[in-house]
Amino acid sequence: MTNLLETISNPEELRAYEISKLPQIARELRNFILSSVSSTGGHLSSNLGTVELAIALHYVFDTPYDRLIWDVGHQSYAHKVLTGRREAMSGLRQFGGISGFPKRSESEYDAFGTAHSSTSISAALGMAVAAKTKNEKRNIVAIIGDGAMSAGMAFEAMNNAGVNKKVPLIVILNDNEMSISPAVGALNRYLVKLISGSMYAATKRGIDKVLSVAPPIREFAKRLEGHAKGMVGPATIFEEFGFDYYGPIDGHNLDVLISTLENVKTLAQTEGPQFLHIITKKGKGYSLAELDPIAYHGPSAFDPIVGIEAKPVPKKAYTQVFGEWLCDMAQADERLIAITPAMREGSGLVDFERRFPDRYYDVGIAEQHAVTFAAGIACEGLKPVVAIYSTFLQRGYDQLIHDVTLQNLPIVFAIDRAGMVGADGATHAGVFDIAFLRCLPNLVLMTPSNEQECRAMLTTAFKHDGPTAVRYPRGAGIGLEAAGESLATLPIGKGFVVRSIDKALPPKKRIAFICFGPLLYTALSVAQEINATVVDMRFVKPLDDKLLIEIADSHDGLVFVEDSATKGGAGSACLEVLSDNNIHIQTLLLGLPDEYVEHGELNLLLDNYGLSKEKIKQRVLARFV
Amino acid sequence: MTNLLETISNPEELRAYEISKLPQIARELRNFILSSVSSTGGHLSSNLGTVELAIALHYVFDTPYDRLIWDVGHQSYAHKVLTGRREAMSGLRQFGGISGFPKRSESEYDAFGTAHSSTSISAALGMAVAAKTKNEKRNIVAIIGDGAMSAGMAFEAMNNAGVNKKVPLIVILNDNEMSISPAVGALNRYLVKLISGSMYAATKRGIDKVLSVAPPIREFAKRLEGHAKGMVGPATIFEEFGFDYYGPIDGHNLDVLISTLENVKTLAQTEGPQFLHIITKKGKGYSLAELDPIAYHGPSAFDPIVGIEAKPVPKKAYTQVFGEWLCDMAQADERLIAITPAMREGSGLVDFERRFPDRYYDVGIAEQHAVTFAAGIACEGLKPVVAIYSTFLQRGYDQLIHDVTLQNLPIVFAIDRAGMVGADGATHAGVFDIAFLRCLPNLVLMTPSNEQECRAMLTTAFKHDGPTAVRYPRGAGIGLEAAGESLATLPIGKGFVVRSIDKALPPKKRIAFICFGPLLYTALSVAQEINATVVDMRFVKPLDDKLLIEIADSHDGLVFVEDSATKGGAGSACLEVLSDNNIHIQTLLLGLPDEYVEHGELNLLLDNYGLSKEKIKQRVLARFV
Repeated sequence: MTNLLETISNPEELRAYEISKLPQIARELRNFILSSVSSTGGHLSSNLGTVELAIALHYVFDTPYDRLIWDVGHQSYAHKVLTGRREAMSGLRQFGGISGFPKRSESEYDAFGTAHSSTSISAALGMAVAAKTKNEKRNIVAIIGDGAMSAGMAFEAMNNAGVNKKVPLIVILNDNEMSISPAVGALNRYLVKLISGSMYAATKRGIDKVLSVAPPIREFAKRLEGHAKGMVGPATIFEEFGFDYYGPIDGHNLDVLISTLENVKTLAQTEGPQFLHIITKKGKGYSLAELDPIAYHGPSAFDPIVGIEAKPVPKKAYTQVFGEWLCDMAQADERLIAITPAMREGSGLVDFERRFPDRYYDVGIAEQHAVTFAAGIACEGLKPVVAIYSTFLQRGYDQLIHDVTLQNLPIVFAIDRAGMVGADGATHAGVFDIAFLRCLPNLVLMTPSNEQECRAMLTTAFKHDGPTAVRYPRGAGIGLEAAGESLATLPIGKGFVVRSIDKALPPKKRIAFICFGPLLYTALSVAQEINATVVDMRFVKPLDDKLLIEIADSHDGLVFVEDSATKGGAGSACLEVLSDNNIHIQTLLLGLPDEYVEHGELNLLLDNYGLSKEKIKQRVLARFV
Repeated sequence: MTNLLETISNPEELRAYEISKLPQIARELRNFILSSVSSTGGHLSSNLGTVELAIALHYVFDTPYDRLIWDVGHQSYAHKVLTGRREAMSGLRQFGGISGFPKRSESEYDAFGTAHSSTSISAALGMAVAAKTKNEKRNIVAIIGDGAMSAGMAFEAMNNAGVNKKVPLIVILNDNEMSISPAVGALNRYLVKLISGSMYAATKRGIDKVLSVAPPIREFAKRLEGHAKGMVGPATIFEEFGFDYYGPIDGHNLDVLISTLENVKTLAQTEGPQFLHIITKKGKGYSLAELDPIAYHGPSAFDPIVGIEAKPVPKKAYTQVFGEWLCDMAQADERLIAITPAMREGSGLVDFERRFPDRYYDVGIAEQHAVTFAAGIACEGLKPVVAIYSTFLQRGYDQLIHDVTLQNLPIVFAIDRAGMVGADGATHAGVFDIAFLRCLPNLVLMTPSNEQECRAMLTTAFKHDGPTAVRYPRGAGIGLEAAGESLATLPIGKGFVVRSIDKALPPKKRIAFICFGPLLYTALSVAQEINATVVDMRFVKPLDDKLLIEIADSHDGLVFVEDSATKGGAGSACLEVLSDNNIHIQTLLLGLPDEYVEHGELNLLLDNYGLSKEKIKQRVLARFV
């Protein structure tokens, strides 16, 4: 049999096929994705779940004139393959290759760059308003998961969209009954109620046939609406919000999808915002992923026949260091409460939830709430630990300011994925946190350079009577693990000298590396070659002014090293101290430049940004010798 | 008649009175607030609307053991008066006096500091979870307005609260059919529907009597629930979210309020989250405020008999400069779309809405949505201008990063209330924006020192093909108004020398003030006395490196001046440039210290933080001469 997928290099070519050919294309596409992701690594479960949806959308809508916005966008691989990037999939998430998320600069079919959750409806509403303003007959489609719908931002957009009657907006709720972690909250419970209604049962039984006769739009609308109303009360929540609501329908049935989308497309132009609720299965068609969609959420490369194999991990990831510390600390202090915004696995809370279920709160994709919820808990004398990725803390920034640091409440922010994150790229990198955190009064901010220090810092944070943050990187450290179950602390605001210049040698240029975080070890290896001092500052805030001044007084040049943006970063904080103390010394700021970081393998990225051992050595020698 | 209010210095004393005395206390309290606010200035309409509610809450609940959280908190004056701060009200919002918002450090009755909208339910849920964890029979009450309910954060909290069955949480929706600007969005429309249902009509007719017989709890619950269901379908949205819903009831009827609160209080302990919908009138009891609650939202001092009088304004506020520019720019370019998150009046958009209603979007209290909605519009070739307060942009920080600057979309952020804001204090000050904005790649960030420059910067921003932000202060500038309807631009990234050192004088210490924003004029007056150079940098980003280096080369000391946090601020950005260029010169960072700012009159605050003319002069002389 001819491979049809290979004949499709853009959606026009897809649309040239008869509907009857689409199931074959779906099979080929699913196999292609499985084969592709198992060789490159990447998101799998979500992409297997949206094969039919991607086909149906490009079949029905006039892309790229019509806009598709994939919320989060980790489910956009089928879309990428259908829009001219089939061959590029072999370079997915690799340095110089295509992104794992939709990206405007990558393709005209990527109408909006996504990666963080729950932005799609806002962006789509903006585009729909623009289309209306410009009198264009464009359709705008946001595709959003049930987990992403739980974020406040999606609610804000829905709240606004529903009153913008007559804008050509279509929201497709891709309901697979989970985000990365199982979905939580009242909205999810409500969706389950909708699905369990007899409406959906009826849909599953016979709606293919009903829709295949293609009733006139008006009748279709009236019937579906009537159905919905009969099942779940006089109106669904979505109708209360001003949308027409249709569904739930089977998101793997191409006939149903296409007929329904055709109708919804027409209605959006005449009736305004449409809401279509579809049901899909994560991992669809690959039984291992269907059985364990969480494991197959974002696997590394694997053999699709064998499945993911547990590999011996040479070194412990920081996430795991945190997870173990959290359990030990919770064991030692019953006031500890752990909070995660939908990142149980990613943040290392699986064991904690199992061992301390009563002290575990997964609040869903709701970073704003997570932070202020913690503030409320802290007011009552318990000790919240908020486990959050650096990039997602950006979502709770105002709450961190207004509810936490202003009130000086004792909350620990365990900030994972600080610095560069590799394959996920700019959207997931945690490179601004030092800049946006160090300006906040009352906050203690720490940057561990190894696992042992990370554990000690977490304990220090927990025992401090005020807001604290420990930012640690993605992946493994140097393998320096904390001994046993130690809950030792560090003196707050104190750095220490890791290596001193060899005084026996005649100093020409006495250089000191002033380090924040894991690049300390790269600096150390350079320092051993060029005979320089290395300081582990540990604290960005409060900064160890005294130590910094001592080092400045005894050296000829200071090199500040951090794995974050230099603009406003930790090195910049040191310059402020030097200024305040009227100290004049040659300085060099090493960190990330003023541009959004690329995606790809971490060591390639470090080299690209001048932070590999060789590059650091070159830059230091160029400046100081 | 004895003044009862004067006998009440804490809620215990209020609770000692018979219910029959409460209406008199309410009258006295309302008069006191009117008299107090008209002499100090402050929030009026909202406080007149919550007199009965504050009395009823403290009467029914065992404060401070039970927790009251006033969302936004600008309606907490009655609460303050009843909790021992009657006399302190004369110092409201003044330097050294009490805050205009609840503040934990001010009173044990202020369970949670508020000021930014929509935090109360998250905080209350945290406290309720803590109470349950600690086995305390504490009740936690969040009081939130209908405007604040439209924020995503409130939704996130509701979504989580509803599934935490059995936590003693009570949410009171204080529905006055408006936030500062008229309420918008689908949720508001839904609330109107609830109110207009016959339930509320019935409530208004006869519920006093029904409730005065005090039915047993169970019966009460069943009846009200049944009522609600009969009126608005099988369940309100709030019930779908897992709350028991009661209301709407008349929030000015003390008998109804107290009976209902008694019942809801009991139910919260046994049944979990309760939602009580009350209707109040902003400005209640003061006819001028009832007629125009927006004008009386936050007036300056006025004569309560005469009402607010239009005073001749000597100088134009920056807000007005922006508002006029916006209309002129919109007239000149039909692509301009203006967006405000519920700040039509505060951001100066009243004229714009009147003149260009089709290009005006008030999205409600929904900063996250506002930013990404703008991004969607910008993708389609229109030109959004987001008018937002500095402190509220913190709410849309992730969206600014992930949706705007990463995609390099041309959007203008007109950032009002940058720097210190005076009487509103730390929660409303815009002192972190330079630090959290200047680290973002692609963003152009400008700080006007006068009105003319502000206008030119807004035009420059609008015409730039990328994301831009212009941050300008609250209140009036120096009176240097833009000529006519000029839409001239400035060269991006260029500062200029306002004053040069008098070369005829023998230079001892050649000092230059490097200024960002309105403190330039303070620096200029110091410079005239001590013969120093003054530079208006205009752009924090891109910084005019060339000019800075020139000035550094020709001077002996640089003084960086900004009205924002020095940690990570504009001065810090200059230090980075000096470091990068290997320049060693004495420097002094002037700006706000590493602490949350106090509230009070702006000039007192400037002096307090060493930024008055005299203090700047002293600090400069102390350092350099």
